[in-house]
Amino acid sequence: MTGPALLESQRVRQDIRAGRITGTSRGLAHGFVQTNLAILPKEHAFDFLLYCQRNQRACPVLEVTDPGSPTPRKLAPTADLRTDCARYAIYRDGVRTEDRTDITDLWRDDLVTFLIGSGISIDGALENAGVPTHKDRWVLRTTLPTEPAGPFRGDMIVTMRWLTAAQAIAATQVTSRFPFNHGAPIHLGDPAIIGADLKEPLFGGPVPPMPDGIVPVFWACGVTPQSAAENAKLPFFIAHAPAHSFITDLPAQALMNA
Amino acid sequence: MTGPALLESQRVRQDIRAGRITGTSRGLAHGFVQTNLAILPKEHAFDFLLYCQRNQRACPVLEVTDPGSPTPRKLAPTADLRTDCARYAIYRDGVRTEDRTDITDLWRDDLVTFLIGSGISIDGALENAGVPTHKDRWVLRTTLPTEPAGPFRGDMIVTMRWLTAAQAIAATQVTSRFPFNHGAPIHLGDPAIIGADLKEPLFGGPVPPMPDGIVPVFWACGVTPQSAAENAKLPFFIAHAPAHSFITDLPAQALMNA
Repeated sequence: MTGPALLESQRVRQDIRAGRITGTSRGLAHGFVQTNLAILPKEHAFDFLLYCQRNQRACPVLEVTDPGSPTPRKLAPTADLRTDCARYAIYRDGVRTEDRTDITDLWRDDLVTFLIGSGISIDGALENAGVPTHKDRWVLRTTLPTEPAGPFRGDMIVTMRWLTAAQAIAATQVTSRFPFNHGAPIHLGDPAIIGADLKEPLFGGPVPPMPDGIVPVFWACGVTPQSAAENAKLPFFIAHAPAHSFITDLPAQALMNA
Repeated sequence: MTGPALLESQRVRQDIRAGRITGTSRGLAHGFVQTNLAILPKEHAFDFLLYCQRNQRACPVLEVTDPGSPTPRKLAPTADLRTDCARYAIYRDGVRTEDRTDITDLWRDDLVTFLIGSGISIDGALENAGVPTHKDRWVLRTTLPTEPAGPFRGDMIVTMRWLTAAQAIAATQVTSRFPFNHGAPIHLGDPAIIGADLKEPLFGGPVPPMPDGIVPVFWACGVTPQSAAENAKLPFFIAHAPAHSFITDLPAQALMNA
């Protein structure tokens, strides 16, 4: 007996839910949008949504669930947000106290989940334009302040890619077509102008000396809202663990000028 | 004694505040972004912001003030939202009970103001592309449901323009460059497909029989969130009166791929 065919995204989420996949989401369900998760009590939801609105480049909100609902109705109606992310980071008073693979027993009726666009989703479009995405890519702190809302505040986190001039132009063109997923670069050239911290990258390993002929290009990064939520020192919030994004059923191309 | 030169937008707001301008904002402070206003108590602000997020095409939020603040810090830092719109519509239990030219005595510490992009702002860009904007333009109800959030719900309101084929193509190109201000058309061709109500236009006067060679083109309209707020039958909310938008200091071109 066979049911309707599953999407690759649905198959992968089943494997995650069953514990058959526990690692990074990078490279899984190619072509489907992956999102960062921020799960927090409704009492903070307005300020957090407002923070995202005020910093739209860094925080492209793709869906917000109704309070208490573990179902992202629009992006993955068959998913359960309590089990279908491979790894969750639990924060208490702004400190990451533990990781979980299942948050069912932490769930509350007042929790609101924000699904925020991840740059991973447009790697395919960049690759198609001849821009390599799997190397020379770092996530960095900067000294560009974001606009605060309520307790949420902090400096922008960026993705830096090292590109040739031709790639930098193509990457600017391609990402401009995704205004609702970080959009065009926020900077290119000298990292010092935005205070990019090359000494302690958040992801991507140590930054070597930059070769000649390379243009560093910078995009607002979806880690920014998670950092703002840490800074807010909320008594309780949950995020996806870095590199363990939530996989939706939305084709990446659908984000183009959505 | 002369102070620093005022922007045209600032001059116009001074005239409005002083009661020297009381009419429509259409045609005033050309080249500056105009916004619709929705002013409501903080207890409803999350649901309303969520409604806007879920219906971004119709409800492009450009700024949200902090509760109680009458200052749009980003878009017009010298403005006072209680006096600088020429005409306000006061709603009680979803009914427009009165209009005011000043809402200072209705102001409360819990009021949050949403400044929502108005299609008027991109008329200049359309005109530059050879698309006339001052005639054959209507605001219509449709039967396209919006996605509800809390008490906010209703069908999409659209702007319909009658264009030649060449203008329809140019208008699609131009408006696509403003993804944060209604963006590309949501439909073109047969009005019946989206249930557009040609019999009772909300603005623009009666719709005559359509001439040959004309393509009707439809954009999501910023009246949609106001209609959703009416449907929510909140005890109290305030909007700009139709055609009396709030004039900001933001140059319209700055909205392009903001």
